[in-house]
Order: sequence, then C-alpha cells, then structure tokens
Amino acid sequence: MEVRLKILFTSLCHTDLYFWEAKAQDSVFPRILGHEASGIVESVGEGVTDLAPGDHVLPVFTGECKECAHCKSEESNMCSLLRINTDRGVMINDGKTRFSINGKPIYHFVGTSTFSEYTVVHVGCVAKINPLAPLDKVCVLSCGISTGLGATLNVAKPTKGSSVAIFGLGAVGLGAAEGARLAGASRIIGVDLNPSRFEEAKKFGVTEFLNPKDHKKPVQEVIAEMTDGGVDRSVECTGNVNAMISAFECVHDGWGVAVLVGVPHKDAEFKTHPMNLLNERTLKGTFFGNYKPRSDLPSVVEMYMNKELELEKFITHEVPFLEINKAFELMLKGEGLRCIIRM
Amino acid sequence: MEVRLKILFTSLCHTDLYFWEAKAQDSVFPRILGHEASGIVESVGEGVTDLAPGDHVLPVFTGECKECAHCKSEESNMCSLLRINTDRGVMINDGKTRFSINGKPIYHFVGTSTFSEYTVVHVGCVAKINPLAPLDKVCVLSCGISTGLGATLNVAKPTKGSSVAIFGLGAVGLGAAEGARLAGASRIIGVDLNPSRFEEAKKFGVTEFLNPKDHKKPVQEVIAEMTDGGVDRSVECTGNVNAMISAFECVHDGWGVAVLVGVPHKDAEFKTHPMNLLNERTLKGTFFGNYKPRSDLPSVVEMYMNKELELEKFITHEVPFLEINKAFELMLKGEGLRCIIRM
Repeated sequence: MEVRLKILFTSLCHTDLYFWEAKAQDSVFPRILGHEASGIVESVGEGVTDLAPGDHVLPVFTGECKECAHCKSEESNMCSLLRINTDRGVMINDGKTRFSINGKPIYHFVGTSTFSEYTVVHVGCVAKINPLAPLDKVCVLSCGISTGLGATLNVAKPTKGSSVAIFGLGAVGLGAAEGARLAGASRIIGVDLNPSRFEEAKKFGVTEFLNPKDHKKPVQEVIAEMTDGGVDRSVECTGNVNAMISAFECVHDGWGVAVLVGVPHKDAEFKTHPMNLLNERTLKGTFFGNYKPRSDLPSVVEMYMNKELELEKFITHEVPFLEINKAFELMLKGEGLRCIIRM
Repeated sequence: MEVRLKILFTSLCHTDLYFWEAKAQDSVFPRILGHEASGIVESVGEGVTDLAPGDHVLPVFTGECKECAHCKSEESNMCSLLRINTDRGVMINDGKTRFSINGKPIYHFVGTSTFSEYTVVHVGCVAKINPLAPLDKVCVLSCGISTGLGATLNVAKPTKGSSVAIFGLGAVGLGAAEGARLAGASRIIGVDLNPSRFEEAKKFGVTEFLNPKDHKKPVQEVIAEMTDGGVDRSVECTGNVNAMISAFECVHDGWGVAVLVGVPHKDAEFKTHPMNLLNERTLKGTFFGNYKPRSDLPSVVEMYMNKELELEKFITHEVPFLEINKAFELMLKGEGLRCIIRM
C-alpha cells in the first residue's frame, strides 16, 4: 500500500518550522521534514490499485483509508488509520523507514517527508489530481491553504452577504478569507496584531482590519459594536487560546458560528460563560478544513483550474532546493506567505 | 397588540419554583407566577389580527414578533422584542401591569402569569393551536417538554440508529430522550445522579443508565468506553457546569455534537482543552429547543395529535387550582414529572 513519489515542488509551512525548531521536543531524529508538496508517482507497491506511475499527485500529512468509521462518516476526515501522527517516523506497514544514510535510518515526518527528491508515502495519503494543474501552484493546497479555505467553506459555511471575522492573517487565515470571499461574504473583518499584514490582506477580500492592540476593550466587544451584535461567522487561525475565546464570543447570538483552526499550546484551556453558548452560538473545530484528502482535494484543484480560487496570491517567493534555508529565513522574519521550493 | 386569555390548565415548571423561592433575588413583587399553560382567547386588543376570541392557544414565556433579525433568521428563536425577560413585570406597550389588588399593581412573570384564571399576554407570545387538541395535555408543550424535545430534534439532530447521551432525567431531559426516540436513535444513555429516575426513563426510550457516582472515572470516559470513542450526540439538561463539560467531552471526535440546554449558575465557567474542539466536535446551546413559539409550536401539537409524541407519560399528577401548593410540594420532593393544575 505504498507509493514512491518524485517530488517536484514543496513549500514551507509553519509546522515544518515548528518541528525544525524542535519545540515539540520529539526524539525522532534525524528526520526529513516537509509536507506541503506536489509530485508525480514514480512507482507503486503491492496492493495499490488507485494510482499508477505518471499520475500527478499531492501528498498529504493526514490520510484517508476509506474503510474506517471516520472515512465512512460524511462529517469527519479524521481517518483512524492514517490520521496525522507527528511522533511516528516510520511506515505503518512494517514500522521501518524508507530513508537511510550509511545504513542508519532517517525518519519520516507526518508520513510525507517532502524535502527530498523522492519519498515513499502510504497510498491513503496521496491525492490524485488533474494532470493539467500546474504543480508549482497547487502544491500549496496540500496543507495550509486548504486548511483555511475548508474551515470557511466546509465548516463555517457563511451565506452570501454575511459577515465573517478572521483571526490571524497568515497563509491559513488568508485561505479562510479566500473562502469567505468565494462564499460571497459582504464584510470580512481581518484581526491581527501585525498591522503590516493588513495591506496584503485586501487582495484576499478582507474589507476591514482590526488590531486588538489599538483598542482598550476586548476585541470581541469591538466587533460586536461594529456589526450590530456580532459577526455571522468567525474563523480562528492563530492557535492562541485568547484569540479562540474572542473568536467565539464575537459571533452573533441566535445564529453565529465560530470555527477553530489554529492548534493551541498543550496546556491551553478554552473558557467561556455557558450563557454565550445557550444564547444559540455554535463552536466547532476543524482539522485540515474537513477535507478528506483523496476524495476532496481533486475538487479543490478544480476550483483553482476554474479560476475561482486564486492561488497565485499566496505564492510570494520561490527558491531552488539548494536554497531551502532561505525559505526558513523568510518565515522566521514573517515575510511573505508561501515560498515554493523547486526540487 | 395584547390578548386576554382564559387559562384552563397550567402546569408547574422548575422556573416557577426558582422564582417562588426568590433565589433569583429580583425585586419584582408581588407577582403572579406560571408560564406553562393552555387556554382560550377571551378578547383581543387593538392591532391583533392573528387571533380571535375562542381560539385555542398556548401562552409562551418568550415571543416571536416576526419582524426582528432573529425572527427573520431561519436559525434563531431569540426574538429581540419579546425574548424572555425575568426582571420585567410589566407589559412592554405602556410599562404597566394588567393585574392589581386594591389599586396596587401585581406584576407579571415572563409575560405570561398563568397561575390566574385570566391573564393578558402580548400577541407575539401566543401560539394558536389545533382546537381539537386536549388542552389538559398540550399545556405541557409551552415550556419544558418542547425545550428538551427541540434540543434533540432541532439542534442535536441525531440520525436513525445513532447513539445519544442525555444528562439529567427530569421533564426536560426526558423531553430530549423522547426526541431521540422519535429520531430513531438506537442507544439512548440516560445520565443522572438520582437512580430512582432510571425505571421511569425507560418509558421515554432510554436504553442504558449511568450514575456518575457509581464510577471512579469521569463520566465522559465511561461513556467513551461504552460507545467505542463517544456518543454521536449529547444533550445536557441539568444546568450544572461540570455536567456540561462532561456532555461535551463524551461525544465522538470527527462528528459528535453536544447541545447545552440547562441554565447555569451566573458565575459558572465552561472549560475544556481546545483540542477537544479541534478534533471536530461541535458545541451548541439552545433556548426553548430552537422553536419559534408562533410558527413552530402548532406543529409540535400536531406531533402529539398524530400519536408520534407521547405527552401522557410526562403527566404524573393533576390537582385543582385550589391545591396548587401540592404541585409545589411534589416538585420540591422530586416526585413525578408534571403536575397539571386545573383552573
């Protein structure tokens, strides 16, 4: 059930940076990072019937076995077999790695390890896409952009003309804003502590900007005042637990829906007065925008091919693989959104 | 926009008891309590076109003006004009009462005051129902039973064959269980600290019982073990904040939905780790089961007329108005579910 991929393009996502900095303190070392990528099937292993050499694909950090209760549920994409596992550095089949150096194993990262010219991935973590799609663009759909986009389109589901607040204007948040723009939201309020992001965000349909530092009141109160009681939908893309609480409390009573995307600190605690819920607000979380990798990603690629979804806006830099460290430097400086790395 | 009703039957709900005990510490006194009732329109005031003398009706503690943003929303029943207000003891039109004794005002309670042979109610708080419906049965639909029933049918929306946990097996919780039974749930797990309620609950479709006191582990963990990861839906009907947290954490990741119904203490704080949300659980609250009083209650009455909804199970006692204190005694002792008071 394994596939060997020739990676053509990969991009750098915060999760790579996070594990590179070893903040997660895992002992899986050495490992090949990278998970946002595009490539071509080089060969397929035993049991693989859905893919053939030459297929254009996106490898994905989480999978879809198509057989577990989650894969059979219309609502979930949290596959029991292939759900993201940041601690496992081996293939699930035999517990071994497919990379080595001088006879010693090099571990895998979230089942993808795309900072490599070739990689081996479980077939359940590979989305076969339209062969006409430009791989140097659609590679960004295999993680962050789809996560934000799906959070809005699949989970928050704003209706045409509605108001949406987006917390965090990085690539994921701007993916969420792009979703709100595509859904026809009339007001898209971007919230970020970094005002340098506001100008860029206009391209993604953000109509108003809010820097919590500019206000004495909690940002949820400022939003409620701006919107006659609250926004119809909010999407939280920072992972900061206080932003999560603000994102929940800024939606309108009666019908507001808040969607959490950002991954919090392990000791974080979400707190709110239960009346905020009883007044008919909804709080939901999402993982990878509720997209099932194999079933749903091909249609996201089609949204780009049909010129609805605008991916070029997200791609601010490009480097050859040799200069991958430059991509890390840009992200550390908070410059740009996505840097494409040519393999 | 006012209607004078002849109340024929009223029943006692915990909210009456709560305000009778003056735990809410309001200064509205003297007032006529009562809000779960049925009656007949005696006369209508200026501006009333929807109702005429002789109409059979249910007065409701919250209203539907049909003109505000909430009434126009398909999702909300929290009318801006007529939303429940436990502090206001007067009519909204002129700020005066329609009851008096020796020239001094007697205040209204939640716009209904049904512990009276006649009462005056805003037309937006009156649901016109099928004149063939027995008023001594359907009176219980004007508060608690509809609250529980709607929480399940309108908000939790379990699918056929799914599993549902109900926290609190009083009248509201059993209304929620009745909703789960009507929706075709295959497992209905009743959770209550009082084991004497378990036998009665079987009539409402509850298939399994759980007393948190019988277990060392948190009840959410016990439920997760019983159900291979969690129930599909849960409905919290106690108002205890720890039960709320358990009700949320006991739903399955990927698709579980928890619905909060019970009203918490004013200082209560809902706390959970954000990962419980990010793993694709949904947390929602509801008010009056998301039923819009005028638009939706007539169809709930029809569910009873069609013998789908079984109201008789909820009615355990009946007394004449003169013996209303007996109804209070029964509730204080925790005996029975609903006591009908004949006016």
